[in-house]
Amino acid sequence: MQYIRIDEINKHADEEVQIKGWVTHIRSSGKLIFIEIRDGSERVQCVVYKGDVTPEIFETADGLTIETSLMISGSVRKDTRSKLGYEIGVKSIQVVHQPKDEFPISPKEHGVAFLHEQRHLWIRSSRQVAILRIRATIVKAARDFLDRNGFILFDTPILTPTSCEGTSTLFETPYFSRSAYLTQSGQLYDEAGAMALGRVYSFGPTFRAEKSKTRRHLTEFWMVEPEAAFFDLDMDMKLAEEFVAYIVSEVLKNNTYELETLERNIVKLETIETPFPRISYDEAIDILKSTGHEVIWGDDLGGDEETVISNRYDRPVLIHRYPVECKAFYMKSDPQRSNVSLCCDMLAPEGYGEIIGGGQREDDYETLLNKIKHHKLDPEPFQWYLDLRRYGSVPHAGFGLGIERTVAWLCGLNHVRETIPFPRLMDRIHP
Amino acid sequence: MQYIRIDEINKHADEEVQIKGWVTHIRSSGKLIFIEIRDGSERVQCVVYKGDVTPEIFETADGLTIETSLMISGSVRKDTRSKLGYEIGVKSIQVVHQPKDEFPISPKEHGVAFLHEQRHLWIRSSRQVAILRIRATIVKAARDFLDRNGFILFDTPILTPTSCEGTSTLFETPYFSRSAYLTQSGQLYDEAGAMALGRVYSFGPTFRAEKSKTRRHLTEFWMVEPEAAFFDLDMDMKLAEEFVAYIVSEVLKNNTYELETLERNIVKLETIETPFPRISYDEAIDILKSTGHEVIWGDDLGGDEETVISNRYDRPVLIHRYPVECKAFYMKSDPQRSNVSLCCDMLAPEGYGEIIGGGQREDDYETLLNKIKHHKLDPEPFQWYLDLRRYGSVPHAGFGLGIERTVAWLCGLNHVRETIPFPRLMDRIHP
Repeated sequence: MQYIRIDEINKHADEEVQIKGWVTHIRSSGKLIFIEIRDGSERVQCVVYKGDVTPEIFETADGLTIETSLMISGSVRKDTRSKLGYEIGVKSIQVVHQPKDEFPISPKEHGVAFLHEQRHLWIRSSRQVAILRIRATIVKAARDFLDRNGFILFDTPILTPTSCEGTSTLFETPYFSRSAYLTQSGQLYDEAGAMALGRVYSFGPTFRAEKSKTRRHLTEFWMVEPEAAFFDLDMDMKLAEEFVAYIVSEVLKNNTYELETLERNIVKLETIETPFPRISYDEAIDILKSTGHEVIWGDDLGGDEETVISNRYDRPVLIHRYPVECKAFYMKSDPQRSNVSLCCDMLAPEGYGEIIGGGQREDDYETLLNKIKHHKLDPEPFQWYLDLRRYGSVPHAGFGLGIERTVAWLCGLNHVRETIPFPRLMDRIHP
Repeated sequence: MQYIRIDEINKHADEEVQIKGWVTHIRSSGKLIFIEIRDGSERVQCVVYKGDVTPEIFETADGLTIETSLMISGSVRKDTRSKLGYEIGVKSIQVVHQPKDEFPISPKEHGVAFLHEQRHLWIRSSRQVAILRIRATIVKAARDFLDRNGFILFDTPILTPTSCEGTSTLFETPYFSRSAYLTQSGQLYDEAGAMALGRVYSFGPTFRAEKSKTRRHLTEFWMVEPEAAFFDLDMDMKLAEEFVAYIVSEVLKNNTYELETLERNIVKLETIETPFPRISYDEAIDILKSTGHEVIWGDDLGGDEETVISNRYDRPVLIHRYPVECKAFYMKSDPQRSNVSLCCDMLAPEGYGEIIGGGQREDDYETLLNKIKHHKLDPEPFQWYLDLRRYGSVPHAGFGLGIERTVAWLCGLNHVRETIPFPRLMDRIHP
């Protein structure tokens, strides 16, 4: 008898197979017992008919409890009511391990704190499995897109030597005889990579020791950051929109069932096609003013303002050319207008906020040095970064996409804490 | 005129194109100037013939220096001596940025410390580019292999709450009102993932604050760790050998030029096919004794012993069933023989040492609890991990592959410090 994973069942119609997994649901009606089994690849209904099995097996089936692990053998048969198209007519059951205690997580409502305390078990539920599978698709799509477009993976360091912009949001660790800080972005290193490999991307965890409890923040989150030599802001925005559109299309293609499990309105995802709308910061301010919001030119856009803007569109919107004072020192100013940066943010629709931040980097040595000083930063730790402008400097641009916010958006979640296996928040580091 | 990347040149024979990149080499002979340009995708020779260009362009070409960034236009023509098969007959040159100072890294010998201090520039050299491209292939091959075999990416946390096995090799950071530690492995979390998703893998940076300066150790290194439910040691070893063989085959397929640049003896890689030899720890000890090494049963194998064993084979060797006392508390003991673990290490050939460590995990609640106590560990922080044995425990196994050691082996490097863009060592965290 062949051991198969449940997602291969359609290749084994009318055959005898063995599956290995866990009981997720059980109900009996006299001579029939229906056991739903999950094995990580899929879920399938297994039907035990009293007339088909020994009394011992029927008794075993009748005594099964949620999350019992087992091996079931039986024949694969058509079942048009199941989404798989098949069910298993059980011949034998071998229990691997039956829990002594009731599984702590039931379909009934649990508090958020309890569920997070039980995160190692909570991830077994169909909703969490769906989210984690979609996360895996998003990561794979991001990597595939960049690999196919000539970007080379460039693993930037997590431990960094300096707290360039102050230590207030940095995690710090003793590093032998000195201190090190956990990275907040691979970008500066990616720029060095782009000068060597032309187009690179980093993809790793980043950290922010922020004392904030919002539904959009984790202390540990993953970012993918492409950076390309000879790229300007327009090329960067084009790359960003094609990148995001590809990720959405891959999720729609590969995760129909998961989106259904999450009851995600996929019509809102199917409209995500390039080109995305692009507006300048100036236009964003005009929109906000005309809709009665009290903003003045020069203010950064907060979460509420972002939602007002993004709600006007059925796809992500790119906002470019923010005031230089809103953006980091490394952003290049617009040569046409020195008070705005050649930067862009991408806001996800449906109020999911900023998912991308990026733009063109300052590539002139003197200008960059002056910007560093203007931001009251010590130029010394930036000498290596300034070197990139000393030796064959080129126009270059890039951006960072936050994975957890992208997962939250595509899954339709109202908090990023369910987007990663073991979320880290200000008040949550266990398990 | 079309802007192309150099690696697309074979699609543009006899066309006029523009390339953008950096000067890596220049030599002139009277009326001809030969400029080698790199753009990250490839290198190409550009030929300036005095009769073809204006005096200004010829003068510009004559004044070019190493690492000048520029845009060159010209016609693509056959050149059988070049590995690309083509060269560019230059029509015009536009300098983007010419360095005022000489590029610090020349083809002459430099000291290791100097090169690492200049790592942000050193990565532009052909040897470093080759290594980083091979690294990218290895990572992609590892992910593709696991994705295609039903493993789901599962990003385990970097910040962990407890120093389960002592703090001596852990990096510690204040985490709001408490402490957190940088992960040394995602395995325990992967086990929770395997119970939810069947087959998972983590792939991220791991950390070890070891006060050791060897050619095999970094303080920050990347690991890929697959973990599968209903896997035993044999399935685990089979997975490991197929995984490694696939990675090697992908590097051979995609990085011919890079391996050539590194002068890697590829005959030694072409022999890497499954099945890999498998020997027990007992057999390893016998081999060592019979070749005059002073070892006694129960000793762990050190680097020297590993080299003796691995030198006997033309491909990686799997050593299984080490004494339980050599291995971590979570390893399952062999039911046939309780003093050995159902574990396996894979040693790379040519003296590159251990690249994989793994095995079957203890899946019985009481036994695991006793092992935790036997290792003098506090069971409290392991309650969530013990839960995996309370609710539907199953046999499961996995392993971890170290990326940097794999890169070192496949590239033929004698130190892991060149295998990652910005290596972190005990005495090296800058730039």
